[in-house]
Amino acid sequence: MNSKAVAVMASGRGTNLKVILESVTKGECPVDVRLVISDKGDAEALTIAREAGVPYVAHVDPKKFSGREQFDAECAELLDRHSCQWIVLAGYMRILSSSFVRRFRGRIINIHPSLLPSFVGAKAVEDALEYGVKVSGCTVHLVDEVLDGGPILAQSVVTVFDDDTRDSLHTRIQIEEYKLYPATLARMANEGFDIEGRQVIWKK
Amino acid sequence: MNSKAVAVMASGRGTNLKVILESVTKGECPVDVRLVISDKGDAEALTIAREAGVPYVAHVDPKKFSGREQFDAECAELLDRHSCQWIVLAGYMRILSSSFVRRFRGRIINIHPSLLPSFVGAKAVEDALEYGVKVSGCTVHLVDEVLDGGPILAQSVVTVFDDDTRDSLHTRIQIEEYKLYPATLARMANEGFDIEGRQVIWKK
Repeated sequence: MNSKAVAVMASGRGTNLKVILESVTKGECPVDVRLVISDKGDAEALTIAREAGVPYVAHVDPKKFSGREQFDAECAELLDRHSCQWIVLAGYMRILSSSFVRRFRGRIINIHPSLLPSFVGAKAVEDALEYGVKVSGCTVHLVDEVLDGGPILAQSVVTVFDDDTRDSLHTRIQIEEYKLYPATLARMANEGFDIEGRQVIWKK
Repeated sequence: MNSKAVAVMASGRGTNLKVILESVTKGECPVDVRLVISDKGDAEALTIAREAGVPYVAHVDPKKFSGREQFDAECAELLDRHSCQWIVLAGYMRILSSSFVRRFRGRIINIHPSLLPSFVGAKAVEDALEYGVKVSGCTVHLVDEVLDGGPILAQSVVTVFDDDTRDSLHTRIQIEEYKLYPATLARMANEGFDIEGRQVIWKK
């Protein structure tokens, strides 16, 4: 399998997908985005992918499947058919079935808006504010069967201001995400990594 | 009570005490360290305090008390007698009794070698390495009855390197501690803060 072949799964605005594709176009991120899958037919991510000339852009409609397993099996089929080494989650809002996670163990990548292991879950930015941390950030990590729990590839720090709201903090974290996600994919393609215990050791 | 009157409690080498006293001497930290208490008679912290001219330097020997409550009551007595607004823990190895924590609620300050709420407890540096985080750091926080759980005053970030050992990472975190602890005490003295929920809001 081509170690630079990437699929992106997205549900929404596709902003992380967009910055990844821009980074590829600029020659800063030597990966080959072969496939974009969305579970939402009207996801802007699909338009972004088509306009960027991604070879295969798929809307897989959950309503056409009897359950999560069946839906994920269809996605897995597409991923295998296009020989994608890496599956990049970019605002993908569905929970992955355990069989999907097991099948692509060590090959699914996610970005989370906190410095993991602090603030797992869907309300990471609110939770960080409420806890009163003075720094937060974002984490690119491999996906395993523990929520936001896989080995960490990269983290980037954002200062929390006393007058931050959920929106102001989230905006600054996203600015970091847009740098960190393509940079981490580039590093994966250029260097590769080993995993020791749960530590990601970059090869260069 | 003088809002700049500080007591330091230490058990060991007193390195955090030392940098605080140096910062005071240099005029960078406008607090008045009136009292240093150690539970260990041979703690270097006691020597450092005496040499720096701290007015009252006390070894309170746990062996002379029937239990933690009695020991803490003696310390509390000293703290009250010297009218210390802030109680700064600097490598203080004893667990504080709940009655002590309640009595000085919101006035006890600690520094912890991780970005809380990640990695509470005595093995923070090892735990961070084992988890595989790419950034760690240190946290100055108020002490409440939850282990390493009080409101956060300040945090400082340290990059974790792939080849870090417990010692190399701990050394770099300590370098940040030596800056962050005096800087935070200075900010407390110069600005003051309010607490909303668990968020520390600085007044300036």
